[in-house]
Amino acid sequence: MSAGAGGMGVRMTAEMAEQPRVLAALAGRRSELIAELRAALGDTAPAGIVLVARGSSDNAAVFGRYVLELATRRPVALAAPSLITRYGAQDRLDGWLAVGVSQSGRTPEIVSVLESYGAAGARTVAITNDRESVLAHAADATIATAAGAEQAVPATKTVTAQFAAFAVLAEALAGDAGRGRLPWDAGAWDALPDAVGELLADVGPAVTAATAIGAAQGLVAIARGLLLGAALEAALKVKELTGILAEGASAADFLHGPIAVVHRGLPVLTLAAGGPTAADVAEFAAAARERGGRVLAIAPDGDLPIPAAIGDGLAAIPAIIRAQQLARELSLLRGIDPDAPFGLSKVTATR
Amino acid sequence: MSAGAGGMGVRMTAEMAEQPRVLAALAGRRSELIAELRAALGDTAPAGIVLVARGSSDNAAVFGRYVLELATRRPVALAAPSLITRYGAQDRLDGWLAVGVSQSGRTPEIVSVLESYGAAGARTVAITNDRESVLAHAADATIATAAGAEQAVPATKTVTAQFAAFAVLAEALAGDAGRGRLPWDAGAWDALPDAVGELLADVGPAVTAATAIGAAQGLVAIARGLLLGAALEAALKVKELTGILAEGASAADFLHGPIAVVHRGLPVLTLAAGGPTAADVAEFAAAARERGGRVLAIAPDGDLPIPAAIGDGLAAIPAIIRAQQLARELSLLRGIDPDAPFGLSKVTATR
Repeated sequence: MSAGAGGMGVRMTAEMAEQPRVLAALAGRRSELIAELRAALGDTAPAGIVLVARGSSDNAAVFGRYVLELATRRPVALAAPSLITRYGAQDRLDGWLAVGVSQSGRTPEIVSVLESYGAAGARTVAITNDRESVLAHAADATIATAAGAEQAVPATKTVTAQFAAFAVLAEALAGDAGRGRLPWDAGAWDALPDAVGELLADVGPAVTAATAIGAAQGLVAIARGLLLGAALEAALKVKELTGILAEGASAADFLHGPIAVVHRGLPVLTLAAGGPTAADVAEFAAAARERGGRVLAIAPDGDLPIPAAIGDGLAAIPAIIRAQQLARELSLLRGIDPDAPFGLSKVTATR
Repeated sequence: MSAGAGGMGVRMTAEMAEQPRVLAALAGRRSELIAELRAALGDTAPAGIVLVARGSSDNAAVFGRYVLELATRRPVALAAPSLITRYGAQDRLDGWLAVGVSQSGRTPEIVSVLESYGAAGARTVAITNDRESVLAHAADATIATAAGAEQAVPATKTVTAQFAAFAVLAEALAGDAGRGRLPWDAGAWDALPDAVGELLADVGPAVTAATAIGAAQGLVAIARGLLLGAALEAALKVKELTGILAEGASAADFLHGPIAVVHRGLPVLTLAAGGPTAADVAEFAAAARERGGRVLAIAPDGDLPIPAAIGDGLAAIPAIIRAQQLARELSLLRGIDPDAPFGLSKVTATR
């Protein structure tokens, strides 16, 4: 990794470097986790699924939304927490599954909404770093991401672990019969930790891309399908670490009206991994180039390359590694400390 | 309304001016529509609900997501169309309700996803301007917004009509027993058309706000709960009509990390109407002001006032009127024709 002046970003860099280990541990516990989840949740497919999360965890939930629908063949809802905490909605959720995602497991809003869903009849799963957290204790089952304490403000190792956790949950819900509906195999899990390690050792593309972005004040991050959550996470990391107004969106949404924002020189970060939505992202990139946008691709053979061998299914994880590197380099270029940018504090406390 | 030079924006202005008539017609057909919907959908509460839409229609669906959960006491999913059209997901939706929203009723992606949901066992509702469109013919029931042809690129009268249509659908699904769970009453419907007419006649606040925004290249539009869909629509209108990179978001999401983007002078548009989330929006506005953001409020007694009498439940509609006015004035100030900005074309054709 490139070194930040005066130790800037040392925590973020160290936490990013733990990702191969964290992902290898999760991949290694996969069979055990699936057995635990199936024991806790039973064999009956859920009537519906709702996910509750904020911030980076919510970007993981966007990925979860796709893989859990592929697993269960039912559309998945992303919770609107204010319905529970502000409007007093009283849901009836017998037969439903509710998943709460929080790095710390202590975000009051996420805990109270998951508890409310449980009281409404849903089975509940916590995805959290801390098996002893309130969120974990409130849930019927927990996927402990076990990434270790995270001290830098930008969440990194906990986020890629949450994406991996959703993939594991999808496998548990698909069961043996439905496993073929998920677009990744055991080989992708095996390859993932080393692939991530190689990306982390290769910081040059992020330095080059950050230099190309230069002093831009806006950016869009575009993907579709299984990489949409990664695009949202890329935009969030850029926002938090640089103050650049970075919006993440679906290529299908942005290709029409919103493309009006793409002017000469606007950085346009695209994410694709050769899957069934790659052509949509390519179509958007071509339209953005036509308007003068400066397209930077996170893709196999892109400006910020990711390994083709991982495949579209789990590609969100290496794509996020590239986005972390890019946001970190942009931050350092602007003289901002990635560990604590803009006076932000670590624990969210949304009620 | 202020006049655009050389007839710029005449179509958009004329279509905006039709909104009181369109909303009055929908309000007047409310009982009839509810009876039709209940006859087509039956009395059994849906097992789950999924909404499919793009662009402005998707912002209406975000509003729908809230009011349909209040009505049915089940979380509502916003479709990820690529799961159907790209990944070949084969959902099982017996007992579910699927709602497709398209102004024209001819967007191929929306039609094919709604058809797919119907084939998977869901009952289907179309919300569209054209009762004779493919989407309407594919659905078990239709709420025809009947706003008349829309020719300006930015959707206006069809969007507020879609928001109203979701409120009507919520009433149909709540039934008499659940009507009290919806935070508006017949009085709000009665007051809505005239209130919208009065806002349309009062263009001064939008001119003042547009002048304050001046040459800014970024903007954020923030709300929470029932006004979130309106904030997303405000951001979309500003993007399409001005090229400003405008992001819409929840106050609860933006208050933590993303607030890093709020720098001195960044226009921050807030939307609130005195409901249970108004305090969250006020908290965000205070934090944004502390960072030097130029906060402009769409609110009763705000910079862009909306009538308090409508209440939080249907306030999204007058709030969108204010956003339309603001986007239109910003566009004219920049010498852009609101009727056809940036070479955008009207019909979306996402497959």
